[in-house]
Amino acid sequence: MQQQISVITLGIADLERSKRFYSEGFGWTPVFENEEIAFYQMNGLMLGTWLQPKLEEDMQRPLSRPGAFELAHNVPSAAEVQPLLERLAAAGGRILRSAEAPPHGGMRGHIADPDDHAWEIAWNPAWKIDADGHVTFGV
Amino acid sequence: MQQQISVITLGIADLERSKRFYSEGFGWTPVFENEEIAFYQMNGLMLGTWLQPKLEEDMQRPLSRPGAFELAHNVPSAAEVQPLLERLAAAGGRILRSAEAPPHGGMRGHIADPDDHAWEIAWNPAWKIDADGHVTFGV
Repeated sequence: MQQQISVITLGIADLERSKRFYSEGFGWTPVFENEEIAFYQMNGLMLGTWLQPKLEEDMQRPLSRPGAFELAHNVPSAAEVQPLLERLAAAGGRILRSAEAPPHGGMRGHIADPDDHAWEIAWNPAWKIDADGHVTFGV
Repeated sequence: MQQQISVITLGIADLERSKRFYSEGFGWTPVFENEEIAFYQMNGLMLGTWLQPKLEEDMQRPLSRPGAFELAHNVPSAAEVQPLLERLAAAGGRILRSAEAPPHGGMRGHIADPDDHAWEIAWNPAWKIDADGHVTFGV
């Protein structure tokens, strides 16, 4: 079976508020949007941001935030971590941890999106990232 | 900025129980594991399963399940949705919704992993998936 994730869908409360974070903060452009969902074409998968009541209806159960998961976005250099955290905060995010060197090396910080979904912004020199954003594990 | 997610990390309670679901159910092989985390090399990103107390310590806040998000894995044909749901259930998952045709077309069902993280198993003929599992949006 392919080791494949096709979509990560995040439950959100306000589509415009969420789009501001992802479009102005990260600088990402939706590939599709309507009044309840936006999809971003990512590195081999889709990121979806969907009104939480619709997601809960689809899943047939209530959902909590902040959930027991974390997303990460890697940047090409240590010096880019803190400026991106600050740009994301200016676009509606909330910094959880400013840039610092973690025990395992590299550089990272954490920010919550407007719906309290956590992103780690990381520089990890051991993980290769190609021009299409495809990330390969390394130690 | 690259439209790139480098890692999805899920908080888990028991590494062996989680590995059984992902290894026997999906048939995926970890690229790295130690006593607290397993990483799976996915389609251009990593899936990490990490003991939830460690994730919470790293995030510096408590986390809830089931969280307001959903992951999806796409299969090549409608006929593969239900058998995969059943294999995942036999490996410790819990079926939330059996295979059915959703309003927008295709075929899908939902299953929770042993830590109550939801996966949609989907057949979506509009979304192209290449040999490396890279998924491209289509309507």
